[in-house]
Formats: sequence, C-alpha cells, structure tokens
Amino acid sequence: MKRGELLYEGKAKKIYLTNEADKVWVAYKDDATAFNAQKKGTIRNKGELNNRISARFFRLLGAHGIAHHFLEELSATEQLVKKVTILPLEVVVRNIAAGSLAKRLGIEEGRRFSRPVVEFYYKNDDLGDPLINEDHIAIQELASSEQTAEMKKVALRINGLLADVMASCGITLVDFKVEFGMDPAGNLLLADEISPDTCRFWDSKTGEKLDKDRFRRDLGDVEGAYREIWNRLGGETHV
Amino acid sequence: MKRGELLYEGKAKKIYLTNEADKVWVAYKDDATAFNAQKKGTIRNKGELNNRISARFFRLLGAHGIAHHFLEELSATEQLVKKVTILPLEVVVRNIAAGSLAKRLGIEEGRRFSRPVVEFYYKNDDLGDPLINEDHIAIQELASSEQTAEMKKVALRINGLLADVMASCGITLVDFKVEFGMDPAGNLLLADEISPDTCRFWDSKTGEKLDKDRFRRDLGDVEGAYREIWNRLGGETHV
Ligand SMILES: Nc1ncnc2c1ncn2[C@@H]1O[C@H](COP(=O)(O)OP(=O)(O)OP(=O)(O)O)[C@@H](O)[C@H]1O
Ligand SMILES: Nc1ncnc2c1ncn2[C@@H]1O[C@H](COP(=O)(O)OP(=O)(O)OP(=O)(O)O)[C@@H](O)[C@H]1O
Ligand SMILES: [Mg+2]
Ligand SMILES: [Mg+2]
Repeated sequence: MKRGELLYEGKAKKIYLTNEADKVWVAYKDDATAFNAQKKGTIRNKGELNNRISARFFRLLGAHGIAHHFLEELSATEQLVKKVTILPLEVVVRNIAAGSLAKRLGIEEGRRFSRPVVEFYYKNDDLGDPLINEDHIAIQELASSEQTAEMKKVALRINGLLADVMASCGITLVDFKVEFGMDPAGNLLLADEISPDTCRFWDSKTGEKLDKDRFRRDLGDVEGAYREIWNRLGGETHV
Repeated sequence: MKRGELLYEGKAKKIYLTNEADKVWVAYKDDATAFNAQKKGTIRNKGELNNRISARFFRLLGAHGIAHHFLEELSATEQLVKKVTILPLEVVVRNIAAGSLAKRLGIEEGRRFSRPVVEFYYKNDDLGDPLINEDHIAIQELASSEQTAEMKKVALRINGLLADVMASCGITLVDFKVEFGMDPAGNLLLADEISPDTCRFWDSKTGEKLDKDRFRRDLGDVEGAYREIWNRLGGETHV
C-alpha cells in the first residue's frame, strides 16, 4: 500500500489517496479544536491514542455485524480505510444530558434519559453544524429516507454495543457522534472515527470526564484522559 | 358570558377566565414583538384584524373537520374559545424557504420545497424557542408520541386547506405556526391564533410580503398588509 496525494486535511485527521482507488490512508493528528474551531490546541499523543481507540471500536462493531470503513492499522497514528462518499450529516446518540442538548432543552447535565435520543446535524462549518430534522434532510437531499432510517437504526445499535463494552470497563457512555458514507456499490458504511474526540465518556464511579470535554472546558490532563480510555480498553500502557 | 380574571397576558393577546370554567375570553392586542421580544412595537388595528382573520380561518378549518378551540367572536377584538392546556410546542409547516429555516440551512428565501417541512419548536422564551426533534419531545414528555404524530398530521392537513384558500385569494402560503392544546376530555384541539402574525403570506403575483415580516424587517405599512389579507379573505374594507 502506497500513500498518495493529500485528499483532505481536516481538523483532526489528514486523508490521503493510495495506489488503490477504493482505499484512503488516514493520518490522525494531535490537533484539537472545539466550538466550531474557535478554540484550538494540541493534545500530546492524541493522534496515536485516537488511531488505536478508533481501530479497536471499529473492529468490535464489525464483529457485531456493523458495516464499516476500517481496514487495518498502518502505523501508530495511521490507518487504512475504505474510501466512501461521506453523507453531510453528523448522527449523534445521547443517553445522558450533556453539552449542547442540556443547553438547548434547559436541563442539568447528568440526567439519564428514559431512552436514547438520536439527533442529526448538518455537517456544514459555515452554518455551525446546525441541528436539523428528517424533513430538512429530505428537502435538502442530504440522504434518502431509507438512508436516514438506516443511519438511525445503526446508530442505536452502535450505542448499545459501545455502552456495553464501556460499562464493562467502568465507563459510562454519555453520548457520541458518528458519520456514515456510501461505498461505490451503494452500501452505507460507518466511517470517520470513534474516539474520545467524538464521544463523552464518564468514569462510572467518580463521574470524571475522560473525553474532549477536558479540552473544551480546560479541565487539565487531556492526554491522561485519552490514555485512560485506551488503558481501560486493554491497550498497552505506553502507546 | 361574563369576562373574569386575567389569566395570562402574552405578547399579542390577553386571556381572561369567564363564568364558564371550560371557556376563555381572548382579547387581541395591537402590540407586536419579534426576535423573542427584542423588537417591540404596535401595529394599528392589528388586534381587530387578527381577531377577524383568525376567526375566519378557524371556522374554515372546522368546516373541514379540524378540531379547534374557537367558539365565537365577542367584539371586534375579542373572541371566546375553549380553554385548553397548551402543549409547549410550536408546530411550523413550511412550503417555501424563508426566515430561520433559510438561515439554518444556508439557502435562499423563496425556494419552494419538493414537499412541506414540519418542524417542532419548544415553546420556552428563556431558551429562545429552540428547534427540537421528536426524540427531544419524548424524553422531555412535552407530548406523547401519539400526540406528536397527530399534530404533524393535522398541521399538514391545515397546510393543504390554508394554502388552497389563500391561493384562491391570490396569496401564497409560505409557512405558518400553530399551537395545540388538550381539552379536559383529552381531545387534541388546534388553539391559539392563525393570522399574519403567525403565517408568511406573499402576494402570488408581485411577491409582496403581507405578514409580520413587514414589521420584523421594517418594510413599512404593516397595517395595510394585514388589512389586505382581511380584504382578500372577503372581509369588510373598513374593519
Ligand atoms: N472512509 C472515508 N472516506 C472518505 N472520507 C472520510 C472517510 N472517513 C472520514 N472521512 C472524512 O475525512 C475527514 C476527516 O478529517 P477530520 O475529522 O479532521 O475532519 P473535520 O475537521 O472534522 O472536518 P469535517 O467538518 O469535514 O468533518 C472528515 O471530513 C470525514 O468526514
Ligand atoms: N384555547 C386556549 N386556552 C388556553 N390558552 C390558550 C388558548 N389558546 C392560546 N392560548 C395561550 O394563550 C397565550 C396567548 O397569548 P399570546 O399569543 O400573546 O402569547 P405569546 O406572547 O405568544 O406567549 P407564549 O410564548 O406564551 O405563546 C399563549 O400562551 C397561548 O399558548
Ligand atoms: Mg472530524
Ligand atoms: Mg403567541
């Protein structure tokens, strides 16, 4: 596998073409942003930790029948994935009130919902990634109604699987964001990453935040929190 | 029918108790607000025009089988309605891009959608009436899933009926907001008002705005626009 031209540089990853047209090379960066890139920084070893953690989660989900883009790890900070056309949606699942939802509804962080909440956000930095509903998705043709229903179903399935594996490591899955893409054959694949950048993880006993909120809210030792997630998942202590 | 104690004074109407426990007396005011009450003013004769227009629309919808709160006009600016427990939701139906939706999705005002869009907003001034989805409604118990489905269905039915009657008056129904409430027997009733305060109406030929956007955007002759709607509906020229 040969790394080709840089296709896209995002806030957290670089995506390169490869010598195979249906695969892209993902390089995870230490860069961190928050609040639609108004806040910027770096988190030491984040690229390596997220590459490892995300690979671990994708393998786990794949073992449970979730169709995804992940192929193999290429190095400590790099992985090979199937190239997909990303649907311009962020699919968020929430089990406990936190962040923008707590604000939107005027409720306390920490309240567990009677059932998971699924939200769609329009991936559009200029618009600030607004919350949208399924009618908005339809009229803007961001996804077909079948794709929307499927994303919702798969996101809830991921929620169950991730919540279980995290619970067994002493961590509460508060919420997470996923992205989906279409492969050339028309299959909907789970894509992008699943990591402490894209999930809220709280220590089940102490409530300690072990995710990007440590960066957003200047809580300190962000690297330690990401490493703690990796350790709890059974990763090597020193990446 | 005797007017009793003031129950609630809103931005556009006063609601009084009556000598009958299941009825309230609504007095329409000339006061106008916009942008969550940051902008304030008065529109001459708005109280009278909206009272007339809303009564006309509720009668029309009732004739087509929509269950509603309206009972009778009491004076030029007052009407009697069934007392309901308002569900804390604003149900918006949109046929053409305008206002907050055009902003949210980054699209031009004036684009007709391939099909109507239904949105739910949480009626909560402190939170700025945020857009929410059906999962938010469920976990906050703002309405049952049956009520939510029913509101959506009725709102779309209202859209068809209002769009038709307005089209026959040379006016395009761009979008509108409705509120629903529960009567003591557990029936879901269309409540509140339907008027140029709560709808966007564009002259079908000229595109001229004949609704509250004239106030929001300082387009002038707001009273004339409201009166034009009343006239097109066949109301008397001088209210
Ligand atoms: N399998 C894939 N094929 C193609 N693109 C992908 C794949 N997986 C993820 N991507 C896209 O690659 C980019 C990853 O970079 P990064 O996460 O740094 O982006 P970002 O800063 O979050 O920006 P964006 O708002 O575009 O997601 C994202 O745009 C993501 O949607
Ligand atoms: N049939 C009804 N029974 C009881 N309350 C009603 C009924 N119809 C409408 N209402 C409520 O009466 C109030 C009408 O006042 P107005 O429209 O001026 O309120 P508002 O300023 O828009 O405030 P709000 O944000 O409470 O709607 C609203 O709160 C509305 O929900
Ligand atoms: Mg990203
Ligand atoms: Mg009102």
